Amino acid sequence: MSKPGRTILASKVAETFNTEIINNVEEYKKTHNGQGPLLVGFLANNDPAAKMYATWTQKTSESMGFRYDLRVIEDKDFLEEAIIQANGDDSVNGIMVYFPVFGNAQDQYLQQVVCKEKDVEGLNHVYYQNLYHNVRYLDKENRLKSILPCTPLAIVKILEFLKIYNNLLPEGNRLYGKKCIVINRSEIVGRPLAALLANDGATVYSVDVNNIQKFTRGESLKLNKHHVEDLGEYSEDLLKKCSLDSDVVITGVPSENYKFPTEYIKEGAVCINFACTKNFSDDVKEKASLYVPMTGKVTIAMLLRNMLRLVRNVELSKEK
Amino acid sequence: MSKPGRTILASKVAETFNTEIINNVEEYKKTHNGQGPLLVGFLANNDPAAKMYATWTQKTSESMGFRYDLRVIEDKDFLEEAIIQANGDDSVNGIMVYFPVFGNAQDQYLQQVVCKEKDVEGLNHVYYQNLYHNVRYLDKENRLKSILPCTPLAIVKILEFLKIYNNLLPEGNRLYGKKCIVINRSEIVGRPLAALLANDGATVYSVDVNNIQKFTRGESLKLNKHHVEDLGEYSEDLLKKCSLDSDVVITGVPSENYKFPTEYIKEGAVCINFACTKNFSDDVKEKASLYVPMTGKVTIAMLLRNMLRLVRNVELSKEK
Repeated sequence: MSKPGRTILASKVAETFNTEIINNVEEYKKTHNGQGPLLVGFLANNDPAAKMYATWTQKTSESMGFRYDLRVIEDKDFLEEAIIQANGDDSVNGIMVYFPVFGNAQDQYLQQVVCKEKDVEGLNHVYYQNLYHNVRYLDKENRLKSILPCTPLAIVKILEFLKIYNNLLPEGNRLYGKKCIVINRSEIVGRPLAALLANDGATVYSVDVNNIQKFTRGESLKLNKHHVEDLGEYSEDLLKKCSLDSDVVITGVPSENYKFPTEYIKEGAVCINFACTKNFSDDVKEKASLYVPMTGKVTIAMLLRNMLRLVRNVELSKEK
Repeated sequence: MSKPGRTILASKVAETFNTEIINNVEEYKKTHNGQGPLLVGFLANNDPAAKMYATWTQKTSESMGFRYDLRVIEDKDFLEEAIIQANGDDSVNGIMVYFPVFGNAQDQYLQQVVCKEKDVEGLNHVYYQNLYHNVRYLDKENRLKSILPCTPLAIVKILEFLKIYNNLLPEGNRLYGKKCIVINRSEIVGRPLAALLANDGATVYSVDVNNIQKFTRGESLKLNKHHVEDLGEYSEDLLKKCSLDSDVVITGVPSENYKFPTEYIKEGAVCINFACTKNFSDDVKEKASLYVPMTGKVTIAMLLRNMLRLVRNVELSKEK
């Protein structure tokens, strides 16, 4: 009997967003001398993957009506000044940096140099802190929307597309009853993603090399913060147990060799990989109902959607 | 012939600052019902070193007239909420967190949760960015002073005490002609320290396990940013060459086993260790002219000095 598992491509998920983005850019152009918003990308390394990503963001953003300016910085020690210059340049609407630059903690410093008003990737501390506390706006009047980091947001949008978010349930509760496992607990994607899903009602198993934690929605009404419980040190047994309990398996292990064991996947689970390498084996569809092998195209749609939100925030701030 | 090398204790350096701090706290009390400013310390781990540091900050700050409240957080997942509560509590003047908490990148996230107005350790991104760009104030009117991170600031103050800073030279240039080597390039201490010293006119060799860099004062007038040059990958030969060229050797290697080779020290150099472990061998005084084996007591003086600056900044902000 053939298995009914289907592959869903990120390009398919991105389509609906892309139409909306293109329309919004068209509207923007009408009041800006026919010019789209300007996205500046900073490339300060020779990493071929980063270069490819730069070419690809340029192509995508320009195809959707944005202007894109790639600024190649030969000496990475001048990157910080170049970002500060762009922060202060009114003609620049959005800024992104192709990491890694130094490949160490200095990159986290650089992330915070991009001013939050132009941070299309949503990496600013303020945005992460709002995410963790389920705060949706930057101001008390709820006019300026907080930005969500691109990749976690892309995965939420994919889960919505796949109907894992049930829109019969009230907003903020649409993952109620769902269990997810996230293999990655980086500060950039894995931990914020687990918090986002928990804040929407899911039970989330969060896995890193050291241990496995369970994220659930917190009880604290004031801060709406998710709750984290340590389940134990990492072991194959614990991983298998948590994974077989999960309706959704999300992987993000940046290694060519890593493959999530297919036998740990619950029959009919949804599998999503956000790593650049293939984290699932070819036989994943023997178990998965829906399989999303890559998420990049949704991530870039979210990046451009964030950019339009930032443009709108600036306009609203001026109106005040 | 006996060597003239002298050991200078941090307690001796701290003395002058402590008198000034105690006087300022006395002044503060006069207008605050006889109460000193309140420092809150958050301890969310069982690390004996962190506990000892907590006891020690309590003892020191109370002995100087401050109030100190140690808040022990049993479940580290509640630390973030506890910090946010203290951020919003007008009765709290300063906040410090005893790291490590999670021992990974999540600790960098937590550092930024402490609001900059109460960040006595000077760990907020704004303070580091100002340090790198030699910006001394937070506002355009030059009223609110920017805070410097405690440990780098303590080392500058030690170098002033040791007369390495030459006060016949104009401020901002008092290390002109001096060469320093810093064995540590962490984002918390080593890199900002190298930048501080370079901004004051020194040539600084900055060493980590990967490579050795040279920091000098930058030419960019607008941003005043130091300039960084890669000298090459780390090797014993390169380390020895740079070290023998240095008037000041500063170490911060957090390892019991690490000893800086005494034969790499230039005859008569000044040696300062800011690690908790002894980074110099017992024979360091065979070479060093002045040797500072530990810096903690100056660091805590700087922490309390920062606290008074923050209190003053809040007062000045209200006057506006």
